[in-house]
Amino acid sequence: MNIIDIIAQKRDGNALSTEQINWFIEQYTNGSITDYQASALLMAIYIRGMSRNEIIDLTQAMADSGDQLSLHDVADYIVDKHSSGGVGDKTSLVVLPLVAACGVPVGKMSGRGLGSSGGTLDKMESISGWSGELSLQQFRTQLREIGIVLASQSADFAPADGKLYALRDVTATVSSIPLIAASIMSKKLAAGADGIVLDVKVGSGAFMKTLEEARELAEIMVTLGKDAGREAIAILSDMNQPLGHAVGNALEVREAIATLRDHEPPADFWEHCLLIAAHMLYLAGKADTLDKCRDLVRSARDKGKAFSKFRAMVEAQGGDIAQVDHPERLPQAVMEEPVYAPRSGYVAAIDTEAIGWAGVHLGAGRLTKSDRIDHAVGLVMPAKIGMQFAEGDVICTIFANDTEKLDKAHGAVLGAVSWSDTPVTALPNNYGTVP
Amino acid sequence: MNIIDIIAQKRDGNALSTEQINWFIEQYTNGSITDYQASALLMAIYIRGMSRNEIIDLTQAMADSGDQLSLHDVADYIVDKHSSGGVGDKTSLVVLPLVAACGVPVGKMSGRGLGSSGGTLDKMESISGWSGELSLQQFRTQLREIGIVLASQSADFAPADGKLYALRDVTATVSSIPLIAASIMSKKLAAGADGIVLDVKVGSGAFMKTLEEARELAEIMVTLGKDAGREAIAILSDMNQPLGHAVGNALEVREAIATLRDHEPPADFWEHCLLIAAHMLYLAGKADTLDKCRDLVRSARDKGKAFSKFRAMVEAQGGDIAQVDHPERLPQAVMEEPVYAPRSGYVAAIDTEAIGWAGVHLGAGRLTKSDRIDHAVGLVMPAKIGMQFAEGDVICTIFANDTEKLDKAHGAVLGAVSWSDTPVTALPNNYGTVP
Repeated sequence: MNIIDIIAQKRDGNALSTEQINWFIEQYTNGSITDYQASALLMAIYIRGMSRNEIIDLTQAMADSGDQLSLHDVADYIVDKHSSGGVGDKTSLVVLPLVAACGVPVGKMSGRGLGSSGGTLDKMESISGWSGELSLQQFRTQLREIGIVLASQSADFAPADGKLYALRDVTATVSSIPLIAASIMSKKLAAGADGIVLDVKVGSGAFMKTLEEARELAEIMVTLGKDAGREAIAILSDMNQPLGHAVGNALEVREAIATLRDHEPPADFWEHCLLIAAHMLYLAGKADTLDKCRDLVRSARDKGKAFSKFRAMVEAQGGDIAQVDHPERLPQAVMEEPVYAPRSGYVAAIDTEAIGWAGVHLGAGRLTKSDRIDHAVGLVMPAKIGMQFAEGDVICTIFANDTEKLDKAHGAVLGAVSWSDTPVTALPNNYGTVP
Repeated sequence: MNIIDIIAQKRDGNALSTEQINWFIEQYTNGSITDYQASALLMAIYIRGMSRNEIIDLTQAMADSGDQLSLHDVADYIVDKHSSGGVGDKTSLVVLPLVAACGVPVGKMSGRGLGSSGGTLDKMESISGWSGELSLQQFRTQLREIGIVLASQSADFAPADGKLYALRDVTATVSSIPLIAASIMSKKLAAGADGIVLDVKVGSGAFMKTLEEARELAEIMVTLGKDAGREAIAILSDMNQPLGHAVGNALEVREAIATLRDHEPPADFWEHCLLIAAHMLYLAGKADTLDKCRDLVRSARDKGKAFSKFRAMVEAQGGDIAQVDHPERLPQAVMEEPVYAPRSGYVAAIDTEAIGWAGVHLGAGRLTKSDRIDHAVGLVMPAKIGMQFAEGDVICTIFANDTEKLDKAHGAVLGAVSWSDTPVTALPNNYGTVP
């Protein structure tokens, strides 16, 4: 087999065989195929697409490229969740404690921020001392003892995906449905999940801008799960505005803590967490209807059990519990500046990706692989589509450590919000599930 | 400017601006843009194409990426030739001495093999000691003193092309009309040619498989030349069968020497060299009709002047003259095996690219950038389309240094030839000129 022939075949719009895909993944993982050949193939895949069979083959080859985890010695049924990435998406920080508090162990591997989307690990590292770098032994022990683990995606699982993901990020080949589906599902399959809840974001802050694309991605991923003998359900979640209010690492941790503990959590974010957590419990067979699962989740929150799980996880992973109990001790930015509504009216649209990039440029994300994250910075934006404001009302607060970056973010937020004189309908939380 | 945005723009089928193209070429040349990003862009260009303006911009940016040569201190009018690449195409080895022998100085820069096509430098390096690595000073001096130079494409001219050419070769992005046109013409423009004869190959052994594609490439290149104030003429040459008989480096040098010196040169190859050389003399104003130019070329050969020029060039560039005078001293393969006609009949078609690859797999070309060429190996195939053979006649002889490779080439040659029971018309040498 020859990589040039394989590239040419896909370049010309022809399907690759199972053997060709297996060989490519094997040779790329062991370094025999170069990055520049892989990126040519990725671009050909991006433009020409892949058949369902090719995507299944690619996913399986990537899942098989490294270790396979089995956690059945810890729990009979392993449930996992994955978000396709969005702005202000701190869902895992809340959902994992909720599910664990209901007696279903969850050991999740997470990644870092990508483009305008934040990453769960980056957020958690706002807490002093907290680390997601666990050995497999630590992972198992913690899962058995407290039923909740939030670890860094291990390079030992689907290593082909790790390499390809980094390459796609710098070659404009990220937003390809076959490549996204294979990337997500290969990791989930290798990590040994029996049931997977897929949080597929759609809208101006998501990789998938249209419902049609999001549905296509969701359907492929559910197929990939079923094909591998797992249960999978996808929720098509709205990402036309940031999820909750906070965007930026410590700010999001604070919002997650508030959602787990405080009297009035941000409504859209709580509803989203409730939905994801309930589906995870349902897959795990915790109750026989989704409604009963929702009740279990609500109760886990209201009784403080979920917050305790979060606290236990932070403690087990070396984090400073005082920062969890007193979130005002989390990193704080030096500057705090309100953004005022430039006119009266209704919020008509929010360019959510632009809000995400505003956060990245403040220092909450990375522009190059080697950038260090500033955990304190970001923004808190209570404005939602459909809300009415008078000129001069605060629509957002920016938290910055640099005047120039602050000014830039201020302009970006103003530019990202569109206004209407007439009432605008609020957006739904989600657009249903697949299947 | 940002390379990821530029890749994404072309990926989505949009035209790049002059500024974007200039910036890409500049940053790729100086190493700021990585190979894996360039290869993603090349694949996007391959699949999405380029407008005429983009090709003009790309060509000029590549020509401007390094030094610009002027040879007007050596000759009033500089004439050059270029072949788009084919199998058994040793034309330069014969045409340059012919033109120089007619009193028109030719200093040509050549490249190495690409895909299934051989490269002039690789061929010449079959001669012990011969080197195309000349300083600019050596180039000028030799051109002034003996009127003929065959040098390695200097990395100082169109360096962007050098890098891109090597990358395209290993990423299945060679056979793209915009990229081929820009690659060829950028080097010709930088090397300071006033008149350029373009030998555009068409057929099963060429990058351009159809006359339509070949004409498109020819027209774009003639436009690129005129746009830069040069004279350019393209000859659409047949490449549905290997040119001449020999394929492989030393074997081709031997055939070139025979064509310059011996009584009966291979008819198709000699006619081709005559045509190219006559057009070069015509552009250089050596005579006022093409027929008179042909007479000059014939005479230069028949009087032995062209062979003397070849000999002088080899000597000036450190080559072993004894190997020129006694070509049997050129590298010889250990194994020599005839391929017999598997049936009686007429040769109906030859998959010439397959013949080229058979040579590459024998070791006459490179499968990866770092492969070393085996100058001795290759094949000699006197069979031409339209020729009649009886079962068991020799249609080809394979020269190899490895039994396994020999067997593979044997099968490849048999598979590349199609047969007919009824007479088949021989192919023309060429399909006319552009403009």
